[in-house]
Amino acid sequence: MNIMVVKSQTTISDRGFFGFAKILLRGAGQVMFQGSAWTGLFFLVGIFWGAYSSHTPLVAWGALLGLLVSTFTGFILNMPDEEGEHGLWGFNGILVGCAFPTFLGNNIWMWLSLVLCAGLTTWVRTGMNNMMKQWKINSFTFPFVACTWIFLLAAHAMHGLAGIHEVHHAHHHLQHMQHILFTGDVRYMAEVVLRGVSQVFLIDSWVAGAFMLLGLLVCSRWAFVWAVIGSAISSLTAFALGAPMGSIAHGLYAFSAVLTAIALGSTFYRPCWRTALWALLGIVTTVFVQAAMNTIMPHGIATLTAPFCLTTWIFLLPMLKIDKQSADHSSWHRRK
Amino acid sequence: MNIMVVKSQTTISDRGFFGFAKILLRGAGQVMFQGSAWTGLFFLVGIFWGAYSSHTPLVAWGALLGLLVSTFTGFILNMPDEEGEHGLWGFNGILVGCAFPTFLGNNIWMWLSLVLCAGLTTWVRTGMNNMMKQWKINSFTFPFVACTWIFLLAAHAMHGLAGIHEVHHAHHHLQHMQHILFTGDVRYMAEVVLRGVSQVFLIDSWVAGAFMLLGLLVCSRWAFVWAVIGSAISSLTAFALGAPMGSIAHGLYAFSAVLTAIALGSTFYRPCWRTALWALLGIVTTVFVQAAMNTIMPHGIATLTAPFCLTTWIFLLPMLKIDKQSADHSSWHRRK
Amino acid sequence: MNIMVVKSQTTISDRGFFGFAKILLRGAGQVMFQGSAWTGLFFLVGIFWGAYSSHTPLVAWGALLGLLVSTFTGFILNMPDEEGEHGLWGFNGILVGCAFPTFLGNNIWMWLSLVLCAGLTTWVRTGMNNMMKQWKINSFTFPFVACTWIFLLAAHAMHGLAGIHEVHHAHHHLQHMQHILFTGDVRYMAEVVLRGVSQVFLIDSWVAGAFMLLGLLVCSRWAFVWAVIGSAISSLTAFALGAPMGSIAHGLYAFSAVLTAIALGSTFYRPCWRTALWALLGIVTTVFVQAAMNTIMPHGIATLTAPFCLTTWIFLLPMLKIDKQSADHSSWHRRK
Repeated sequence: MNIMVVKSQTTISDRGFFGFAKILLRGAGQVMFQGSAWTGLFFLVGIFWGAYSSHTPLVAWGALLGLLVSTFTGFILNMPDEEGEHGLWGFNGILVGCAFPTFLGNNIWMWLSLVLCAGLTTWVRTGMNNMMKQWKINSFTFPFVACTWIFLLAAHAMHGLAGIHEVHHAHHHLQHMQHILFTGDVRYMAEVVLRGVSQVFLIDSWVAGAFMLLGLLVCSRWAFVWAVIGSAISSLTAFALGAPMGSIAHGLYAFSAVLTAIALGSTFYRPCWRTALWALLGIVTTVFVQAAMNTIMPHGIATLTAPFCLTTWIFLLPMLKIDKQSADHSSWHRRK
Repeated sequence: MNIMVVKSQTTISDRGFFGFAKILLRGAGQVMFQGSAWTGLFFLVGIFWGAYSSHTPLVAWGALLGLLVSTFTGFILNMPDEEGEHGLWGFNGILVGCAFPTFLGNNIWMWLSLVLCAGLTTWVRTGMNNMMKQWKINSFTFPFVACTWIFLLAAHAMHGLAGIHEVHHAHHHLQHMQHILFTGDVRYMAEVVLRGVSQVFLIDSWVAGAFMLLGLLVCSRWAFVWAVIGSAISSLTAFALGAPMGSIAHGLYAFSAVLTAIALGSTFYRPCWRTALWALLGIVTTVFVQAAMNTIMPHGIATLTAPFCLTTWIFLLPMLKIDKQSADHSSWHRRK
Repeated sequence: MNIMVVKSQTTISDRGFFGFAKILLRGAGQVMFQGSAWTGLFFLVGIFWGAYSSHTPLVAWGALLGLLVSTFTGFILNMPDEEGEHGLWGFNGILVGCAFPTFLGNNIWMWLSLVLCAGLTTWVRTGMNNMMKQWKINSFTFPFVACTWIFLLAAHAMHGLAGIHEVHHAHHHLQHMQHILFTGDVRYMAEVVLRGVSQVFLIDSWVAGAFMLLGLLVCSRWAFVWAVIGSAISSLTAFALGAPMGSIAHGLYAFSAVLTAIALGSTFYRPCWRTALWALLGIVTTVFVQAAMNTIMPHGIATLTAPFCLTTWIFLLPMLKIDKQSADHSSWHRRK
């Protein structure tokens, strides 16, 4: 017991640069439930590639800053070390860092807000997990979603934090929409699937998606398989139901389903045919939740990964014995 | 213990056709808290009469399909048998089945969505009850409300699932509104009260309402009395406060109050003068919650029975000792 | 044990007029976490001064009625005496009483609704606290917020309860906005800080704010200090971020932050430099939450003190050991 207490007081300086870098990279990897520094490295490479290739380099640097700030916050607030060790402080922060430069104008207030918001996610996550642990579930990326929504909405009331990119962004989408069609072309469909994966980090690039899939592959074959299935099945479902072509083509109906698929298919249940059916149901349900949220989000605010969180909770809360695994879904890093 | 486990593995085939039919009918009855197959039979007759007489027969067949699918889902997922036995798997599904053909266009995607949504309610109910049981309350019809909202909102983003009926529906209401007035005519007011009861199943027919009241009467005199009081008092309150005449006349300010009245007046408290006052407060509060939700529902989406759920939770959560009954309101079938 | 039961049956009549008046005044004081009758008296004087000086005397009388009704409700429903003794039944009711005459037209339905809503808050508070006590937090003024929202929204659907003041109110604000500027004038800035305090009770008067600060000072020096800091820092933050000048000048970006500041700086944590930093973070976060909620509130409905509740929960839920005090934040009157 005493030893544990001592251990939990380990500070950043005890770890050295590489120890800390490892924790940061794991934080990136945990966005898709993988506590592996290698996975995180592939994800970061994907983010940088995608951000630079679409001429929005600030998104990549924002991601790095968000990851740093949220991880540091955990150390500063003396939170339980075990969580930090597995990268669980960083995954919300890196997403905040991707979202702010994507949706808000590049000025000092944006960067200060990014720092505040990334830090917030670390203790909001603790708070939400405190609320949810009795239901045996986890807050997933919802701290990122809730905190980012607050700041994006606030930007509509305070012009110092203006959302200048949004109009441009929407226009950009519109242009693409016109010359993009489902042609049955396999290469094109593979691109859509890969874009769906990269959109988890708000990146719209099939190359970035390929890097991220590689990152999954080096850590968990099943996570890789379910990410592909999640992206493919959700895009097809959205297509069949007549969702807007442009959104589907840019992976906007797929990214939440990618996360649902990894969560249900390979993280909280042991892969088998029963859990596979369960995960497929989850993927299809995510598409409906995504469409519903697209309908109600005010002022064109993005749904972020809320459809994934909502759907996965719906599928975990009943604590059904789909496989033989424990029904406690309050943490995934203890399952490895 | 072993015996219970074996019992909980009883499958549909062990029950035979009549055993299963009984469970289905109880599912219909549980919409108004009555675990009686006879009550359910009267409700179904009311639904079929109302649907056919208003030239929307698909609503009745949808109700039957939703009831079947959600009940089957409980068996397939091996959920605790005791719940299914009392019809608690079916009541959300039958409401989903009433709602889909009412609000969505008749095509293959509507029917597939109905099946998915009806199935969903069965495990969403388990999940919500898991969350709520520590507060000693029950999810009531909220699984139906939440899941149906998702699909109705999704229909606004995906044209394969279009809400073609909605405009027609609103127009239909508008026409009626003009030649309907509170004339003090007793027969007319009785019709309004009965419509309020039938609107629980999204049916607008006083004859259907009469069938449903008969269904209550064969199972519980107090449920019958409170359904009538709930419908009458809520319509009068809405009238006094100046709610739109057309909505009142079609029972749209009454149906949630009918459920609140049965819940507070006869299900979770033992009928006596103290609980009667409590139930009356609940009925009046439901009218305000209904009006508030009518104001904020986006895209003309119906409130469904959300005002009932919200109000009844408000009146049960404080666990006040209104009567001598236990303050555990997490289930009603154990009270019988 | 028996003695406690007997004690908890003490009725109003046993207390005499002064005993009851003390409970009422404490109810007013608890709006800012002070269970002191003197504090409450200063608050009431502030409310009456503010209401009469802005020619809306009904706001003051509404406040008194709301306070009476919600406190009586606790006695009538036989709720645990200890809570009532500390004024915890009254603080939501007095706010309801301030809000109704501010936002709704003066007719019989408004006053009846005020009585129903003020009474509701007393048991909604018990219900919410039942839900939240396992997370070691308290419902704060959220019962007032939630119940008042229901009635203000309902007023949009039922013309008997019309919001006639709202247009006038908005216009009034607009006029002021034009000749109000941050001039660096210290006296003017002090006025803004004081208005921020008075707006906790929906009163827009710097004199009223001064009375209220005095009320805090007679009970807790730290509450006084943090109220001033909260109002000043939040107004400056909103100014720096470019929130609308008129809103800032009328204290509308400050009142929630005043409550956050008192809660985090002096009520739930022991004042020290660590908790001071924590409270400052809370104040700045409240500004973003306020701006976000201003953006999404439908039909011009006021946010009321929701930004305070939300932010303070965010900062209490993680149960971080900021100081040495217990991490149970479910009640504040036991800390004194």
